[in-house]
Amino acid sequence: MPLTREDFVALDNDDVLAPFADEFHIPDGMIYFDGNSLGAMPKAAKARALEVIEKEWGTDLIKSWNKAGWFNLVEKLGDKTATLIGADKGEVIYADATGLNVYKLVAAALEMRPDRKVIVMEGSNFPTDNYMVQGLIKQLGRGHEIRFAEDGDILDAIDDDVACVCLTHVHYKTGHLHDMAAITKKTHDVGALVVWDLCHSAGALPVDLNGCNVDFALGCTYKYLNGGPGSQSFMFVAKRHQGIALQPLTGWWGHDAPFGFERDYRPRKDIRQFSTGTEPIVSLAMSEVGLDIFMRADMNEIRKKSLKLCDLFIQLIEERLGDYDFEIVTPKEHARRGSQVSFSSENGFPIMQALIAAGVIGDFRAPDIMRFGFTPLYVSYVNVWDAVDRLVHIMEDGGWDKPEFKQVGAVT
Amino acid sequence: MPLTREDFVALDNDDVLAPFADEFHIPDGMIYFDGNSLGAMPKAAKARALEVIEKEWGTDLIKSWNKAGWFNLVEKLGDKTATLIGADKGEVIYADATGLNVYKLVAAALEMRPDRKVIVMEGSNFPTDNYMVQGLIKQLGRGHEIRFAEDGDILDAIDDDVACVCLTHVHYKTGHLHDMAAITKKTHDVGALVVWDLCHSAGALPVDLNGCNVDFALGCTYKYLNGGPGSQSFMFVAKRHQGIALQPLTGWWGHDAPFGFERDYRPRKDIRQFSTGTEPIVSLAMSEVGLDIFMRADMNEIRKKSLKLCDLFIQLIEERLGDYDFEIVTPKEHARRGSQVSFSSENGFPIMQALIAAGVIGDFRAPDIMRFGFTPLYVSYVNVWDAVDRLVHIMEDGGWDKPEFKQVGAVT
Repeated sequence: MPLTREDFVALDNDDVLAPFADEFHIPDGMIYFDGNSLGAMPKAAKARALEVIEKEWGTDLIKSWNKAGWFNLVEKLGDKTATLIGADKGEVIYADATGLNVYKLVAAALEMRPDRKVIVMEGSNFPTDNYMVQGLIKQLGRGHEIRFAEDGDILDAIDDDVACVCLTHVHYKTGHLHDMAAITKKTHDVGALVVWDLCHSAGALPVDLNGCNVDFALGCTYKYLNGGPGSQSFMFVAKRHQGIALQPLTGWWGHDAPFGFERDYRPRKDIRQFSTGTEPIVSLAMSEVGLDIFMRADMNEIRKKSLKLCDLFIQLIEERLGDYDFEIVTPKEHARRGSQVSFSSENGFPIMQALIAAGVIGDFRAPDIMRFGFTPLYVSYVNVWDAVDRLVHIMEDGGWDKPEFKQVGAVT
Repeated sequence: MPLTREDFVALDNDDVLAPFADEFHIPDGMIYFDGNSLGAMPKAAKARALEVIEKEWGTDLIKSWNKAGWFNLVEKLGDKTATLIGADKGEVIYADATGLNVYKLVAAALEMRPDRKVIVMEGSNFPTDNYMVQGLIKQLGRGHEIRFAEDGDILDAIDDDVACVCLTHVHYKTGHLHDMAAITKKTHDVGALVVWDLCHSAGALPVDLNGCNVDFALGCTYKYLNGGPGSQSFMFVAKRHQGIALQPLTGWWGHDAPFGFERDYRPRKDIRQFSTGTEPIVSLAMSEVGLDIFMRADMNEIRKKSLKLCDLFIQLIEERLGDYDFEIVTPKEHARRGSQVSFSSENGFPIMQALIAAGVIGDFRAPDIMRFGFTPLYVSYVNVWDAVDRLVHIMEDGGWDKPEFKQVGAVT
């Protein structure tokens, strides 16, 4: 029997995560499937921002570095994030941006394997990771090379020449999920080190860094963690590497005595060495609001609902839009995917624009990928039904085939 | 005839910049002489932050990258800042933090002078600049060395071995101002490149980068420019070097086609190559509020008032506190100082704590420096009188000599 809207209403009624939706602001009538690009705003973000701006900055001014804990926010938020990614206290810190943190961690890994010259990466990854490593090895000028491999060939690409494997856990475009345990194990078996980019997995699914014996990781906080536009990145450095692995962007926040104002750099021997300098505090402080919601949610329930939302979305597309050119590119197998579903379609760009105009926000990635991200804390089952329903109407009445939907602007 | 409070009231009455004070929030009773560390909050910052959070993030969500101009903010703010530092449109960009930008610019300069190995820096500079360059040259492993020189010996330290001179225009501790024109000229005469750190000069005094033929510069926005705690840094790259000077932290925002998602890095040939990746937008957007106030102020008037405030402060300290151990370490000559006055005092730490408790906010820098920053847009002449008056009372009744003022915490 085909699915009906009532089935989705029933699922929402039974959803233990449903109450969380009220903690986020979603504009009336909008169905937001783009939390994998920019997470929705927690309603409490406004109050926290005003507290930082009016009280901490405006009134307490310089005293807030101590009194409001600004200087230690990077570690405080790190410890909270640790609980979401299978890390321990003191293993995670907030700093800078994802690209810069890829650079720091790969640089630290290469210094630990000075006789090896190969870095394994996924060529189709979101390119900034590749760009940063390309910049690093060009700068080092010591003959390093990137060995690009695609999903399915990664394990075979890891051999005794490899110094470091640097992969994004969930692929930004297709949504495929790498086997963190198997790849990390193979990496260690050949004597190399691994750097995992969790941009599309932190907050999206359970991550077990220490369970997988991971060396280094990083991620962003503005997608599934709802930290706000461009909010800072976090880094994980396994305890066993702290004080040994050292990153080269050696600013005063990573100095052993930052307020000693010594002339020469002396690295701190803990996670703080991976920070560089003063962080934009308003953005940083706001990301705690999103984290605090996660502190009350069960990551296993999030994963369960995420898979179910994605399954149902795929099923409805296949049931109701089987006659149209939508080809799923995300693996259907649960163990092989994150929390997004991507379809390729020749007319993906104007169709996505028409969907957005109809209030269903997904996004498009060249050349032909329509991406839909599912964020279980604020996406409901009925959202899935209604989104597909709107897409059915757009396809049936040809509503996408209009000049205004074909204008290409900057896509993010 | 000694100065009286009435003289200061009269100066305020004649002050063309006086109306600007109303655009900043200063807590009742507070005299804020620490804008050289963290600038005061423009009252309009709150409304701008709420607009970004509630409307741009909360309601428009992902569309704001284009609709609200988030992606181009780094250049828009750069163009505004350019007018304050003698740069042209397209020569300034916002990105990351000061330490990271020192790294990028010195790295770019060293690549342009591959046969030279010496970088001239000031050993007593705020240490993060030195730390970043120490990290860079260690990482490069090509035999570079830093030649440390102090004020007065800088010109002599610049010879044919020098690749790059990297100095902070105004010293964070003593407030001494380097001769940008003379040092830049000598640097060019020997065939080297200069990087100026404007952390303590942008917004504090007129800076003429192109008039001095400067190659590279950077600065922070949370001091004299009132951008908010930890707000982003800006960089200047002279037009003649753009496309030739390339920085190594090669993220997607510096790519020639950032939305092409190509696998390999291709540098953009303009100022944008110096950006790396996604910026914390709330903090970034708020810094425009401070800049917009400067767009309406006359930098020459700011300098005139700054010098007068400092002169009067020094004069009052000498007149009224001549019997105490306060030794001025800031040069008295106008051409030799920025917008702060520093005194050394054996009991500087507890005296500063007592002053802060009395509502006069300056700060302390080890081992014995009391720093007072003067920000003409929101500091009045009467503030100077009243601050010294409170200090006179503290010294006369020994109010600083208490255990609670001697407790050393983290100082920022």
